[in-house]
Amino acid sequence: MGLSRRGLFGLGAAGAAAVGAGVVGANTLLHDAPAAHATSTSDPYPFYGEHQAGIVTPAQDRLHFVAFDVITDKRAELAELLQEWTAAAARLTQGKEAGSFGAVGGAPEAAPDDTGEALGLPASGLTLTVGFGPSLFDDRYGLADRRPAPLADLPKFPGEQLVREISGGDLCVQACAHDPQVAVHAIRNLARIGFGKVSVRWSQLGFGRTSSTSRAQATPRNLLGFKDGTDNLKLEDADLLRDQLWASPQDSSAWMAGGTYLVTRKIRMEIETWDRTSLAEQEQIFGRDKGEGAPLGARAEFDPIDFAAKGPSGEPYIKDDAHVRLAHPSSNGDAHLLRRGYNYVDGSDGLGRLDAGLFFIAYQRDPRKQFVPVQMRLARHDALNEYIKHISSGLFACPPGVRDAGDYWGRTLFEA
Amino acid sequence: MGLSRRGLFGLGAAGAAAVGAGVVGANTLLHDAPAAHATSTSDPYPFYGEHQAGIVTPAQDRLHFVAFDVITDKRAELAELLQEWTAAAARLTQGKEAGSFGAVGGAPEAAPDDTGEALGLPASGLTLTVGFGPSLFDDRYGLADRRPAPLADLPKFPGEQLVREISGGDLCVQACAHDPQVAVHAIRNLARIGFGKVSVRWSQLGFGRTSSTSRAQATPRNLLGFKDGTDNLKLEDADLLRDQLWASPQDSSAWMAGGTYLVTRKIRMEIETWDRTSLAEQEQIFGRDKGEGAPLGARAEFDPIDFAAKGPSGEPYIKDDAHVRLAHPSSNGDAHLLRRGYNYVDGSDGLGRLDAGLFFIAYQRDPRKQFVPVQMRLARHDALNEYIKHISSGLFACPPGVRDAGDYWGRTLFEA
Repeated sequence: MGLSRRGLFGLGAAGAAAVGAGVVGANTLLHDAPAAHATSTSDPYPFYGEHQAGIVTPAQDRLHFVAFDVITDKRAELAELLQEWTAAAARLTQGKEAGSFGAVGGAPEAAPDDTGEALGLPASGLTLTVGFGPSLFDDRYGLADRRPAPLADLPKFPGEQLVREISGGDLCVQACAHDPQVAVHAIRNLARIGFGKVSVRWSQLGFGRTSSTSRAQATPRNLLGFKDGTDNLKLEDADLLRDQLWASPQDSSAWMAGGTYLVTRKIRMEIETWDRTSLAEQEQIFGRDKGEGAPLGARAEFDPIDFAAKGPSGEPYIKDDAHVRLAHPSSNGDAHLLRRGYNYVDGSDGLGRLDAGLFFIAYQRDPRKQFVPVQMRLARHDALNEYIKHISSGLFACPPGVRDAGDYWGRTLFEA
Repeated sequence: MGLSRRGLFGLGAAGAAAVGAGVVGANTLLHDAPAAHATSTSDPYPFYGEHQAGIVTPAQDRLHFVAFDVITDKRAELAELLQEWTAAAARLTQGKEAGSFGAVGGAPEAAPDDTGEALGLPASGLTLTVGFGPSLFDDRYGLADRRPAPLADLPKFPGEQLVREISGGDLCVQACAHDPQVAVHAIRNLARIGFGKVSVRWSQLGFGRTSSTSRAQATPRNLLGFKDGTDNLKLEDADLLRDQLWASPQDSSAWMAGGTYLVTRKIRMEIETWDRTSLAEQEQIFGRDKGEGAPLGARAEFDPIDFAAKGPSGEPYIKDDAHVRLAHPSSNGDAHLLRRGYNYVDGSDGLGRLDAGLFFIAYQRDPRKQFVPVQMRLARHDALNEYIKHISSGLFACPPGVRDAGDYWGRTLFEA
């Protein structure tokens, strides 16, 4: 039973000592019956389900993504941590604290089991999505023979300049919410709960979504100024989700049933150079017009793309090296991705430029057949490569959803 | 006359070449009559006025702050840039593009004079606030004798560990908005307009406000989990604003009439250490309870603080080294600050910790009498110092507001 953050404000405080004891147990019924779907940007999404939330959930506005190294050498401690995280996530996603706000049992002599900065804030559509990196399947935890085939190491792509310190990770958590304070609060509390067992390897904030994952959402824009994700896989595409998103027993491990595979890429953009490129060149590079997002040669964003159509000059409207042509499922054996990326700005780079770009996130059934061939094609041929650079990479197996309060993230992996 | 970003979506696109020409001049009347005050988080604030917006404006949710080095050596180019920036800001703050979206005159062969990523987004309460750093008053631009006395270099404070590369700057722009994409877009376009004349020195995103600047706003929380800015100077405090916020001819330069002085400090927090500190100790360090924000010994957030009140043990409820006691106007000769800071997370630090804290922003009439003595007291005695570290510092003279379309940022400085 949980303490509602919203409920807390109805309570008076009567000095320091009373706070911990005073609020525990109050307002325990709020948010225990979440709406089936968030109906406003304040409301919660359900935590329990066949699949993890935060994948086909309509992409929220803000992101805090973290990768952890596991530093305990005990498999039991790792499994225990995943249970503790699951319990905290079940509360956090419903707008409650990670634990009771004050000290456990109300003793002010203990550290609070919630860090407090989200007190008073609603659930804000928070979802928390966990993944397991390839390195978790080494010899430390007896999981080597459980590594699913689609979690094969990514190949080296031409031109990538990966920074090891911000790549990889044994575990990841994607926190998405409409309020960044809520996303940051969730990641910080999971890190706090994991103290001594995991260590933050890298962490990334994204300030604005660059993809829609539902037809009910308007297509947002990336930092090159173009609409992004028009042809994204969306939650309404039931058949495609079954075929292209969720792990299948045919090509994956049984413990991954209901799960999916996540690829992250931090893509730095040379935005100052881009900003001095002509509109015509920008549009030719993408293969879409900038204002409407329509395929070149067409009129509206969702018009079908005719890659054979030729303009008055006899040249194809969409060039051979245009981004939209190379990335399109029709160029890649009908491989789709469910993209869920975010724009980022990490300050400036010391050379007078903004350190900005796209934190790319894509979910899929099998990266070997989806992300890898698509990205290999892009890395080799995409006209956009002059303006972008891949500087980090992550690959994770996201286990199935948590079924109920007796289940936990990764149970099928650890308890098979 | 401007192009509304919202209006653009009413126009179809008919292939690449038509876009630039198609939209210029359309929908020019939208947003030309901004509301006197933003009535929703989408609406604009007025740009023109006696004072710059973004100071007493109710603090918006998100921040992008940038400091520039001026790289031109020509005073006329600098003044011209300020005029170009003013014109762009007058458009951007009203939800328009920095210039017409496509190429100038509709020619697709030119680079667009807006970068495009805010197309379709409303004004979102954007304010842009400019400041001039002490270094602008060196011998480069003939401004040395115009340096106002309150813009005296800050002293070295005990314990600070300033990083030169993310401190100082000839110019700064604070962009605040409810949508971070809108704030980032504004800064990026000002940087684009300034290409060859200015270079980004440092840049900081803040994801959540940590101060209220109006009594209509709920007090937000910092990343230590406490309400911050309860006793902040607020826009309703007319007498205090006159005495403590706006520059005065008595102690400032005439060109600064209607202006104010800005101090920024990036304050890294040792949040993992803090999170292992007991609730009682956290509350003693602040001098307030964590749940309600009430002064220790009192009941509610806005209860008057009785620094003499003693608890049952005979000790003061609020300790001598408590943050609220040391920072309070009553400890500092009635010196107030208008704080407008933001929480930040810049990823992680490579040592397993989140790189997080507070980007402190404070406006005031004279830093020599306000920020400096308050911060000196805090730097010497504050119990909080164990958990925080000042790593960057900025000081800027923010000129008066732009009166009308014939005026520009800094006109009183350059044209006296």
